[in-house]
Amino acid sequence: MIPPYVIANVAIIDAVRIIPEGYIKVKDKKIVAVGEGDPPPEDGWERIDGRKKILMPGLANTHGHTPMTLLRGISDDLPLERWLKEKIWPAEASLDEESANVGTALAIVEMMRSGTTCFADMYHLNREGAALSAEESGMKASLARGMIAFGAKKEQQEKLKTAIDYAKSCQTSSSGRLRGAVFPHAPYTCPLEFLRDAKAEAEEASLPLHIHIAETRKEVKEHEAKHGMTPVAHLLEAGILTVGSLAVHAVHISYSEMTGLKKNGVHVSHNPQSNLKLGSGIAPLPQLLSHRIPVSLGTDSAASNNTLDLFDEMRQAAMVHKGVEEEANATHAQTVVEMATVNGANTLGFSNTGFIKEGYDADFILIDSDQAHMIPRINHGTLVYSASGRDVTDVFVEGRPLMRDGELLTMDEEKIRHEAMNRSATLAASL
Amino acid sequence: MIPPYVIANVAIIDAVRIIPEGYIKVKDKKIVAVGEGDPPPEDGWERIDGRKKILMPGLANTHGHTPMTLLRGISDDLPLERWLKEKIWPAEASLDEESANVGTALAIVEMMRSGTTCFADMYHLNREGAALSAEESGMKASLARGMIAFGAKKEQQEKLKTAIDYAKSCQTSSSGRLRGAVFPHAPYTCPLEFLRDAKAEAEEASLPLHIHIAETRKEVKEHEAKHGMTPVAHLLEAGILTVGSLAVHAVHISYSEMTGLKKNGVHVSHNPQSNLKLGSGIAPLPQLLSHRIPVSLGTDSAASNNTLDLFDEMRQAAMVHKGVEEEANATHAQTVVEMATVNGANTLGFSNTGFIKEGYDADFILIDSDQAHMIPRINHGTLVYSASGRDVTDVFVEGRPLMRDGELLTMDEEKIRHEAMNRSATLAASL
Repeated sequence: MIPPYVIANVAIIDAVRIIPEGYIKVKDKKIVAVGEGDPPPEDGWERIDGRKKILMPGLANTHGHTPMTLLRGISDDLPLERWLKEKIWPAEASLDEESANVGTALAIVEMMRSGTTCFADMYHLNREGAALSAEESGMKASLARGMIAFGAKKEQQEKLKTAIDYAKSCQTSSSGRLRGAVFPHAPYTCPLEFLRDAKAEAEEASLPLHIHIAETRKEVKEHEAKHGMTPVAHLLEAGILTVGSLAVHAVHISYSEMTGLKKNGVHVSHNPQSNLKLGSGIAPLPQLLSHRIPVSLGTDSAASNNTLDLFDEMRQAAMVHKGVEEEANATHAQTVVEMATVNGANTLGFSNTGFIKEGYDADFILIDSDQAHMIPRINHGTLVYSASGRDVTDVFVEGRPLMRDGELLTMDEEKIRHEAMNRSATLAASL
Repeated sequence: MIPPYVIANVAIIDAVRIIPEGYIKVKDKKIVAVGEGDPPPEDGWERIDGRKKILMPGLANTHGHTPMTLLRGISDDLPLERWLKEKIWPAEASLDEESANVGTALAIVEMMRSGTTCFADMYHLNREGAALSAEESGMKASLARGMIAFGAKKEQQEKLKTAIDYAKSCQTSSSGRLRGAVFPHAPYTCPLEFLRDAKAEAEEASLPLHIHIAETRKEVKEHEAKHGMTPVAHLLEAGILTVGSLAVHAVHISYSEMTGLKKNGVHVSHNPQSNLKLGSGIAPLPQLLSHRIPVSLGTDSAASNNTLDLFDEMRQAAMVHKGVEEEANATHAQTVVEMATVNGANTLGFSNTGFIKEGYDADFILIDSDQAHMIPRINHGTLVYSASGRDVTDVFVEGRPLMRDGELLTMDEEKIRHEAMNRSATLAASL
C-alpha cells in the first residue's frame, strides 16, 4: 500500500478547469481532495512539491499497434498502397511474437515517458506478452487481438474464438487495469458475415467492438461499389456499430453518417497525424464534435506517425482544421484536452478516470513548465500548443508512481531499448 | 581561439547525405573534414564522443518576431481579426523597448535550446537590444526594424531612415554573424509609394527586402479590389520583389505568381503552423517546391504558434500537405530538412552554412537519439517525424559551443526566464 500523499504548489489543469496554484491529495488509488492554495501539513501524509510544474490527467491513446514501433522509420513518404505492399507487410511477415513483445515494451516506454497512462492496442499475433507488459508497466490498457478474415470459414471462427478468449482474459485481469476489445480489422478485410459473428460474440461477452473504418476515400468508394452503401452506413444498419463501439479514423464520412454514429452511441478515435502521413485525408473533427460524438485521440502505430506522443497529436488535432476551414476558432485547446483525457479513458472503458477531481482514480502526470517554450503563462493552450511529451517528468496511475523525475520505475528501459535495436537489426537482415 | 576538435562516433545527417557512423573535424570556425568511421587521434585535437547522437546542421528560422514570446498564450483559438484587435494590439501597446528586449532574449534561449543557430527577427521598436542579444548569444541573425506606414509622409521617411540605418549597422557588425534586412510590414499596411522608396533604399544599401504577403484570403481579395491585381503580382510588377527578396507566408498564390516569384529570384518563408493556427490557410508548399522556388521555414511569433521549435515546423511542413492532397508523397522528409537548414541559411544571407561539409561554417547541433521515440532507425524521417527540439543536447556556431549537454553557455537562462515572468505580469496588469 502506498502511503497517502499531497502534491502541493502545483498548477492544475483538466478538461473543465484551471487552478493556477493548488494541491491534490491522494489516498488508496484515488484523488480524495483537490483545492486552491496550500493545504496544512498532516501526519502520515507525504508531501511532494509541485512548484513550476503542471499537474494534468494522464493521457489516453485510443488507437495503436504497439509492436510496430520496430517498424518506425522503415518507410516514410510513400503512398498507402506502396507503403503497405512494398514495406510494411514484408516487414510484418518477419515480425514474430517475441519481436512483437519487444516492440510493445518499447511502445509502452515511449507512451509512459510522454504522459500516456491509458492506451488501446491491437495486433494480429498472440498478445499474452502485451497483457503482461501492460500489467507490469502499471498503466491501464484496452487490448485486442486483431482479426483479418480473408481465410476459410473454419479458420475465421478459430481466429474469432482466440480473440474473444484473449479479450475476456484481459477484462478479468487481477489488477482491474486491463480491458479487452474485439477488433475485426476493417470492413474491407472482414466479410459482413464475419463482422456479424464478431459482434454477436462481443455482445455475448459484454466486450466493445473496435474497427478501422472510412480511413481512405478508396475504401469508401470500393465499399459503395460493392454494397451500395458506405461502410459506416452499412455497419450502422447491420447493427455492428452500436453503443460503445469504436470507429477508428472515420476520415471520409458524411453528415448523415455522423448523425447515425451519434444516434447509435458510437465513439470515434481521431488519428490526425497518421491520417495525414499516409495521405488518407483529414477527418472532419469540428463536425464530429458539433454532432456531439464522443471523439478521442489515437496515434496509430509508430510506422505512420512516427511517435506515440499524444501531445503532438493534440497539437495536430487543434491545428489542422483551423487551416483547412480557414477559421482560427474551428477547434479549441480545451476541447482537445477533453478528447485526450476523459473522452479517451471513457472510450476505453475506464470510468472515474480523466479528471483531476475528488473520487477519481489518481491517474495524472506532471509537466515541467519552467522552460522557455512554456513561459510566460499557463492555460489549456500551453498543453496543446507549447508542451511536448518530452516535458513530462512524472507519471502516476491509481496513485502509484510509474515515472519520477524522468526515471521509469516499472520498466527496464535500457534493456528494452537495447533489445529493440537488436530485433530491428534482425528484422532488417531478413528483408 | 578554440582549439581544434573532432566529434567522433556520431551519425551525421544533412540535406544531401547520411553517414550512419562518422566524424567531423573542426578548426578555425570551419568544418575541415567529414568522414566515415573513426579518425586516428591527433596531437592538439580535442575529441568529443558523439555516440548515440545525431549531428546535423543547425536550423535556420527565416521568420519571427522575438519580443512576442511575452505574448505566448495570451490568446488562442480566436479568428485573426479579433486576435489582433482584442488581444495582440492592446498588449503590444504596453510592450515597451525594455520588455521587447526581454522577449527577444527569451526567444533566443528557446531557439537555441531547440537547435536553431540562425534566425530572422523583425519588430517595430528600437532593436539595438536585439542586435546585442544576438551577438552575445553567438547565433547568426538577420535583423530588421519593421515598418507600418499609415502615417504622414515625413513620419514614414523617418521610419524608413531609422530602419535602413539599423539594418546597415547589423550588416557591418564586428562578428560578421549579423545581417540586416528592410522589412516593410505588408502591402496592406504600407502604400505602394512607400514600398518603392523602401526598395530603392534597400537596393542602394545592398540590403534584402522582406515582406509579409498573401497571408490571408481577405488580404488578397482586398488588394485585388483596390489595385486590380493580387499583392504578389503587383509587387513583382512594381519591381519590389526581386532577386533575394523574401516573401513571408505566400499562402494564397496562384501558379502564375509562383512562376513570377521563381523568375524574379524571390525566396519564400513557409510558416505552416502560424498559418494554421490563425486560420490563414495552407500554403501550396508542394507547388512552390515544384516551381523550384527556394523555400525555407519560419515559426512566426510565439503568439501564433506557440513555440519557436523548428522541429515542430518541419513535422508540420512535411505532414499537412499529404493530408490536404491525399498523397503520402506530396512532401519528403529530406526536402524538409533542406528547407530548414541550407535553404534557410542562404535566404538569410549566410553562405557556406547549412551543410556538414568541408569548408562550411561549423554550425551544427547534436541530438540524443538514444530515446524510445527515435528507436530503432535513423534517417531524414527521424529528424522530421520523430525528433523534437527538446532532443537537442548541443549547439555549435562557427565552431563555438553555445550549448553543451543541455546547458546554455552564452545566455543567463534562469535570469531571462525570471525577467520574462515579471515583464509578463506587468503587461497583464496594464491590460
